[in-house]
Amino acid sequence: MQRVLLLSTHPLRLPPLPAASSCRKIPRFLPPPGTRRSPPSFSIRNCSSNSSTFKVKTSSELRNTKPSPSSTTDPKLTALRHLFSNPGISIDAYIIPSHDAHQSEFIAECYMRRAYISGFTGSAGTAVVTKDKAALWTDGRYFLQAEKQLTSSWILMRAGNPGVPTTSEWLNDVLPPGGRVGIDPFLFTSDAAEELKQVISYNNHELVYLYNSNLVDEIWKDTRPPPPNKPVRVHDLKYAGLDVSLKLSNLRKELAGAGASAIAISMLDEIAWLLNLRGSDIPHSPVVYAYLIVEIDGARLFIDDSKVTEEVSDHLKKAGVELRPYSSIIAEIESLAAQGAALWLDTSSVNAAIVNAYKAACDRYSQNHEKKHKTRTQGFDGSNEQLNGPTTLHRCSPVSLAKAIKNEQELEGMKSCHLRDAAAVCQFWDWLETEISNSRTLTEVEVSDKLLEFRSKQAGFLDTSFDTISGSGPNGAIIHYRPEPESCSIVDANKLFLLDSGAQYVDGTTDITRTVHFGEPTAREKECFTRVLQGHIALDQLVFPENTPGFVMDAFARSSLWKVGLDYRHGTGHGVGAALNVHEGPQSISYRYGNLNPLVNGMIVSNEPGYYEDHAFGIRIENLLYVRNAETPNRFGGIEYLGFEKLTYVPIQIKLLDLSLLSTAEIDWLNNYHSQVWEKVSPLLDGSAKQWLWDNTRPIMQ
Amino acid sequence: MQRVLLLSTHPLRLPPLPAASSCRKIPRFLPPPGTRRSPPSFSIRNCSSNSSTFKVKTSSELRNTKPSPSSTTDPKLTALRHLFSNPGISIDAYIIPSHDAHQSEFIAECYMRRAYISGFTGSAGTAVVTKDKAALWTDGRYFLQAEKQLTSSWILMRAGNPGVPTTSEWLNDVLPPGGRVGIDPFLFTSDAAEELKQVISYNNHELVYLYNSNLVDEIWKDTRPPPPNKPVRVHDLKYAGLDVSLKLSNLRKELAGAGASAIAISMLDEIAWLLNLRGSDIPHSPVVYAYLIVEIDGARLFIDDSKVTEEVSDHLKKAGVELRPYSSIIAEIESLAAQGAALWLDTSSVNAAIVNAYKAACDRYSQNHEKKHKTRTQGFDGSNEQLNGPTTLHRCSPVSLAKAIKNEQELEGMKSCHLRDAAAVCQFWDWLETEISNSRTLTEVEVSDKLLEFRSKQAGFLDTSFDTISGSGPNGAIIHYRPEPESCSIVDANKLFLLDSGAQYVDGTTDITRTVHFGEPTAREKECFTRVLQGHIALDQLVFPENTPGFVMDAFARSSLWKVGLDYRHGTGHGVGAALNVHEGPQSISYRYGNLNPLVNGMIVSNEPGYYEDHAFGIRIENLLYVRNAETPNRFGGIEYLGFEKLTYVPIQIKLLDLSLLSTAEIDWLNNYHSQVWEKVSPLLDGSAKQWLWDNTRPIMQ
Repeated sequence: MQRVLLLSTHPLRLPPLPAASSCRKIPRFLPPPGTRRSPPSFSIRNCSSNSSTFKVKTSSELRNTKPSPSSTTDPKLTALRHLFSNPGISIDAYIIPSHDAHQSEFIAECYMRRAYISGFTGSAGTAVVTKDKAALWTDGRYFLQAEKQLTSSWILMRAGNPGVPTTSEWLNDVLPPGGRVGIDPFLFTSDAAEELKQVISYNNHELVYLYNSNLVDEIWKDTRPPPPNKPVRVHDLKYAGLDVSLKLSNLRKELAGAGASAIAISMLDEIAWLLNLRGSDIPHSPVVYAYLIVEIDGARLFIDDSKVTEEVSDHLKKAGVELRPYSSIIAEIESLAAQGAALWLDTSSVNAAIVNAYKAACDRYSQNHEKKHKTRTQGFDGSNEQLNGPTTLHRCSPVSLAKAIKNEQELEGMKSCHLRDAAAVCQFWDWLETEISNSRTLTEVEVSDKLLEFRSKQAGFLDTSFDTISGSGPNGAIIHYRPEPESCSIVDANKLFLLDSGAQYVDGTTDITRTVHFGEPTAREKECFTRVLQGHIALDQLVFPENTPGFVMDAFARSSLWKVGLDYRHGTGHGVGAALNVHEGPQSISYRYGNLNPLVNGMIVSNEPGYYEDHAFGIRIENLLYVRNAETPNRFGGIEYLGFEKLTYVPIQIKLLDLSLLSTAEIDWLNNYHSQVWEKVSPLLDGSAKQWLWDNTRPIMQ
Repeated sequence: MQRVLLLSTHPLRLPPLPAASSCRKIPRFLPPPGTRRSPPSFSIRNCSSNSSTFKVKTSSELRNTKPSPSSTTDPKLTALRHLFSNPGISIDAYIIPSHDAHQSEFIAECYMRRAYISGFTGSAGTAVVTKDKAALWTDGRYFLQAEKQLTSSWILMRAGNPGVPTTSEWLNDVLPPGGRVGIDPFLFTSDAAEELKQVISYNNHELVYLYNSNLVDEIWKDTRPPPPNKPVRVHDLKYAGLDVSLKLSNLRKELAGAGASAIAISMLDEIAWLLNLRGSDIPHSPVVYAYLIVEIDGARLFIDDSKVTEEVSDHLKKAGVELRPYSSIIAEIESLAAQGAALWLDTSSVNAAIVNAYKAACDRYSQNHEKKHKTRTQGFDGSNEQLNGPTTLHRCSPVSLAKAIKNEQELEGMKSCHLRDAAAVCQFWDWLETEISNSRTLTEVEVSDKLLEFRSKQAGFLDTSFDTISGSGPNGAIIHYRPEPESCSIVDANKLFLLDSGAQYVDGTTDITRTVHFGEPTAREKECFTRVLQGHIALDQLVFPENTPGFVMDAFARSSLWKVGLDYRHGTGHGVGAALNVHEGPQSISYRYGNLNPLVNGMIVSNEPGYYEDHAFGIRIENLLYVRNAETPNRFGGIEYLGFEKLTYVPIQIKLLDLSLLSTAEIDWLNNYHSQVWEKVSPLLDGSAKQWLWDNTRPIMQ
């Protein structure tokens, strides 16, 4: 599944991310990569102009209605603005991001504050409300949807388009100098909040952390959905591979090695992985809302008590993990400082509320200490003396890497669930081809529902791993297309059909894209499909020295497209969790060469080159792979050489190939792959699906 | 020709260079890339140990003689140390780098101060002399040579080896805190000096700029070779393509655009290119020692008057370039500050003497101005008032990029001289094969001299473009091998022979490597050669979007080697000047992904993958290529797609191929290349050389 739509005209125009950001490879905040972030002037504006307004059309302007943001009464905005002047708050603007407090890709409904306040339900967006303006930033995937959903009270900011400022640039522009910009500090990573603070300081604005309440929640009141409360379950050791005590002990070694006495973890998949727990708080991601503090001699899980079954409670007790209320995280963080802890915080994932609370508590500690110290050493010059107080270590979370490198049981689970998933997918394709050949009219959503039906019959099925991207013809060219029942298209027998889907099983997570044609593909479609496949094969076959970052590999997946002047505007591969999030770091395969994390033996990545022709068709071929030792005959430099092994075994449509473009080695690859698909998946099928698999795995003769 | 030997165990372990360093892609100072530079502790040392000595053996220890650096009397060191206590100098250590004042790769003999003081004549090395120690850093290419050449007074520092500190780390270790470390500020780039200053400050050492004299020159006295004094010549417009006035006017547009009123240029190839001048001050590089200041309304060339012929003088006058004595550069820089200039300085190439002189003059200006200002505005708060004084812009030199993008005439000259060079090289191979088959005994140096003889008969020949690397058998595995008449090997008929050479012609610069076998290559040699050729072909054939940096391409040249666990420890391509330096930036094709400079239409790069088996053989296949528009049928993203065109046309030895490894496309490439070689070069040959060319350009039948 594709994670990030990139809007720059060409990927390699992007500057590399600073090294410090490589903990989290994909920025989760708008604006998307490629958008300018730096003050003080916008290169796309006329530098000599002193105009303070941006030439950005509101959604109402686009609908040819008169723009009158301030005159329209949006009751939610009115209520929100009313809170601005509360003396305890006293702000001039409020920023409402899409996120929960854990930087989750998918979030529980009760945290969808940005959707509630703005009416815009797309997955990515940031709302900013001032006393007289309201603006919503989203990216190219959602321009159309946002135009439809936003009322005339809102300005739509098409992030990535020329002339469109970032949120902070806009605030600098519309607020009189010295404004107070409020945020809920739980909803911003510390890094993001720091950056925001810095940029708005150019116009002397102050970033105000509103710890005590989320202003949207205040006005949402009774209509706000209750927080998720389904029970947590233990992730069986036969799938997890390592027990919690061992994982904690490894983590503690890392802490000790770095001179830290504790770590605060807020990424939900890291907590779930570390504690061998799984939850149902969030669609698609089997995680639970929680924070975790691990100290050298203890660990505390901050979680809603009602979700903890006796089994889970025993499981945690055995590993020495104590339970605390979810809401007590800040108090505990403060008490860590009071105890003089050296706290490891990954500021690229931990929210500003936690990082700031710890910093403030450290400051209080040192003030107190200084005071005492002064009393004791009065008359002496103590300038060279060291305070032995609490400290912070700002580093990438070590759990992120440990989680990414799968152990044997995790890999076994992934392999096993991929075969069951392949069986379901083959049953689906058999069904769909029959239906289409019988001239059945099916919508993109109906088709996607049927796929879910096949998958849900497989052992250990739990959920989809993301919203299925089911795109016929031109819809396939919309990289993050999500068909809606009311508005989606019919699956057209004479157009390319792109299907990107995945599932959560008890033992693993899948993610697969296939592109097919039910009739006669054009020569253009065949050439493009073949070139995408050539990129897919080139990456699949690559052998590389250890310590090679994914961006070194990315161009191999593009080279065949480049040859004729084609390309695609997304990365080629993302990490995948084992029975966890379908997108995970720290590794990636992307042209964004800021991510220096090497691919390591045991990591899982997707291999998903594509090609998208606007208003015509989309092509993507995606398998999941795992990194393994390549066992090369030589080992120059005394190091390991690594390669990939496939997890996904589903036929690739031969009909779409232009065989004249393929080399013997590429045809061998395909024949060999299809032979493996038959061997591995046919035992799980019978009837017409087995026949379909046979028909679709026959070798190509040259 | 290979530029830099890299010593890290694997290239991709190297961190990217900071963006600011990407002006000069290849650090010209020891330690080589990959060596740790950052204080305060060395990771390879035992952190808990307080030992202050490094476990590095002196060259005398290695020769089993007693180490007694301080007891031996080296008269040069004694004389140098005597100068340390001169009250006007008063230093505890002196650093003697290999460089001249212009960061030249090759330097005039009179500037070979490091070789004079240490006796070590290798091209790369840094000497550091303290009151009681003397150490010399060099890299793996020169360990053996340095062991032989250094007396027991010297400690050999094998840069890049585990446990070997950098020069500044060593100074921090051996000098008591608060030492004064002297340098000749003309011999360090400003960036290098700043870095040095920072690192030695960890032990409170001070970096002392000795402007007035170079201490080695002081003791060198009469035996010091005179500075070069051959006349400068005008580089004909038919080769240069653009006249000086136009080049200066383009540069001035860049200055104005950046808000600069002047630029000081110290890179000799940039000056030669900008002024269409060529000189003979330095072996291999057709440049002249000079500085250049270009202002919006004038330009001054700082050069030894005796080299300037009347023709050159007229040529410069026409372009509005005035002459100044070479030694007056600092005075002029100071006067620029006094005039309130906004001076563009590329601190990665301009020496610390110039940058610092300007900075000091700026400081004096603002102090004076403040004083006057205070007198004028006494009683007022002038804090918000702007001083309109001199400023500095620290940016990459715009001349570097302009020079790298060849115009049509420059490309024509390069194409033309490459064909003449190919003719000479073919005559040479024909001669050598005949000699060897007649059992003639020839040394690596004799062979290299013969090649020079053939080349020197070609029209417009001027010089070799670097010292020929002529390596038989195991010598081929020494990437920067330079055979010496007294010690070099015989060219062995039964071993691989690697020949990397190039020439300077009046119209262009060449650089070519071929590897051949005169007898029966082993299967191992054939496999390795074939894989190197596959990498060469993959890079040659690559098409890529505009704005792609070279490091994206590097892995394509390695992929075939990686497949079997092989690799090579150098970059794949460097820029080449047009009738200028054989190595130039800003582009490169390397795994060192700090160089973000994209390959641009009109740039020239070498394509030289290799493979080196220690103590056995070396393989490298090098062509020069130029970047051109690929004229793809599509242009996704509305951008250009680029590819390469070959400049070098010399046969590749078919005998060394393992045909079973080659794809049809690769064989087609080779056949097509050889057909072009015949077509382009045969008209320049006759007799046995023409027959040789015919024999060596026949297509392979599959």
